[in-house]
Amino acid sequence: MPVESLAKQYEGVSPGTMDRLIASTREDMEAVNRLILSRSDSPVDMVPEVANHLIDAGGKRLRPMLTLAAAALFGTAQGNGVRFAAAVEFMHNATLLHDDVVDESDMRRGRPAARTIWGNQASVLVGDFLLGQAFLMMVESGDLDALGVLSRAAAVIAEGEVFQLAKAGDLSATPEDYEKIISAKTATLFEAATEVGAKAGGADPLARKALAVYGRELGMAFQLVDDVLDYGGAKGALGKNTGDDLREGKMTLPIILALQTASPEERRIIEVALGNADGGDVEFEAVLAILNRYGALAQTMAKAERHANAARAALADIAPSEVRDILFDVPEFCTARAY
Amino acid sequence: MPVESLAKQYEGVSPGTMDRLIASTREDMEAVNRLILSRSDSPVDMVPEVANHLIDAGGKRLRPMLTLAAAALFGTAQGNGVRFAAAVEFMHNATLLHDDVVDESDMRRGRPAARTIWGNQASVLVGDFLLGQAFLMMVESGDLDALGVLSRAAAVIAEGEVFQLAKAGDLSATPEDYEKIISAKTATLFEAATEVGAKAGGADPLARKALAVYGRELGMAFQLVDDVLDYGGAKGALGKNTGDDLREGKMTLPIILALQTASPEERRIIEVALGNADGGDVEFEAVLAILNRYGALAQTMAKAERHANAARAALADIAPSEVRDILFDVPEFCTARAY
Repeated sequence: MPVESLAKQYEGVSPGTMDRLIASTREDMEAVNRLILSRSDSPVDMVPEVANHLIDAGGKRLRPMLTLAAAALFGTAQGNGVRFAAAVEFMHNATLLHDDVVDESDMRRGRPAARTIWGNQASVLVGDFLLGQAFLMMVESGDLDALGVLSRAAAVIAEGEVFQLAKAGDLSATPEDYEKIISAKTATLFEAATEVGAKAGGADPLARKALAVYGRELGMAFQLVDDVLDYGGAKGALGKNTGDDLREGKMTLPIILALQTASPEERRIIEVALGNADGGDVEFEAVLAILNRYGALAQTMAKAERHANAARAALADIAPSEVRDILFDVPEFCTARAY
Repeated sequence: MPVESLAKQYEGVSPGTMDRLIASTREDMEAVNRLILSRSDSPVDMVPEVANHLIDAGGKRLRPMLTLAAAALFGTAQGNGVRFAAAVEFMHNATLLHDDVVDESDMRRGRPAARTIWGNQASVLVGDFLLGQAFLMMVESGDLDALGVLSRAAAVIAEGEVFQLAKAGDLSATPEDYEKIISAKTATLFEAATEVGAKAGGADPLARKALAVYGRELGMAFQLVDDVLDYGGAKGALGKNTGDDLREGKMTLPIILALQTASPEERRIIEVALGNADGGDVEFEAVLAILNRYGALAQTMAKAERHANAARAALADIAPSEVRDILFDVPEFCTARAY
């Protein structure tokens, strides 16, 4: 997708950072996009149809850009950096296809989800295909070490999603449960993305570890912000893409924190709305009022800011460069989305 | 599961062959079973619950036994042979979990399918977990070459399943379409199982190729027989596990062959029954009568026999040994199930 439209998605919030990340990875991303296109092709028409429906919808491609930037920090992203970036994006897209089935979502990236057009079956199977192709690209890298990072990530992500499923609608879920879930389902892939990127670029073990920490902390911040955005951002307000988590019964941090201090009556309001797929604006706004009353969204954002700071801190010993500066600013861009 | 109960599943049909395969791989299978148990464990309770529900149900474990036997042909199965066997079984079980979602099956291996107990969501996600664990075990083998074989297999299997889905209920499906489907969705994993087994045992390139061909041909025979069994075997009769393919609209060879010579009225009978999830014994027996009229099951079995012969022929240049004799008899055991 053209750089312009990617940058447009972030209009109003720290456009500079995203523009600079996009610009600095542009050439390598072209190679990644070519690889993505060729590896999602198949003589079975339904495979590229489903895959491209999702891939063409754009998305941020933040993870592969992070892989490329992490590689460029230490050397070149060409070669294995590009392979890993494409593999990371395939893993992410496979997860999205399966998540839509799991969450019974009708929409994804502003378009009907693949499962609403081709059915759950095709979404499951094309997800499996993309996962297989991701592993194949990693095998082609010849880097067993990076392969270990990414295959471990695949198992951990699935484990985290199962844990999230098991905790859905469970009012006794704790902040620790939530932390385990987002650490597994989101931070693991961000960590893998930057770690294998650093590896591809030739980072020494210490620098590679620093980039792994950077990715993990950024991923935590990213998911916390995402979960705040589902309640309309730090200010908490009904909006275009709000309320899905509530309707799906997802025990995200804002809800968990609010439940800790809610009155029995407020608790009941939350309980009724959680997992009620038919819940409307009235139910959502009632819950929102409770979240705002107890500052649950602000507290969640404060936690996101701490992780964003930790991500920045992880880069402290990396030699200064333009790419380092850009990576340094990405966490702020992530959290800024919520204000 | 105890060897006795495994052998019991095959009672009446060439029990000798299965017993000998089980006995000759017994020690290594114990190591495989331990690995399977430890790698399907997780602090997230639902993961081992779902995984073990399927794994405990037994199944034939034919694929991992073939991997072990292929390794033992040339050397020892301990070490990478055991790892690959467990990885192959995990890939197979991941596919089964996803297949149940795709086929909307209620039963699997004589028990309620995982999805009927834990839901589609858990089946999709635990399948993903097993796939991730499979790759991790392969990474631990340190054998990039075998990793390539198995990750390519993962993508091809998914592609084959999508093709099968796209062809479901399509009366214009050809024998070539069917061959493509079963070659991808079944023969690929059999081929990978024996090829990586041979690799683990230290086979030279020529012998490795021979075992790959053996696995592929055996897999073709196995699936053809399976599809005949879904119509009650070579004689075609209503039975305990018959009619699923018809109700799911699967264009298997018996149906494709019958359609080639069916009268317009017979064609209509097949058309109505295909993909009719509520179809009962009456619809099934009407279709069965047509299959029997045109010898569609016998023709399918003849094709299975040809593949079984090709599997045996592939072993021609392998040095004689007890394991070779056992592998030589497995194709016959496979086809005998249908008579």
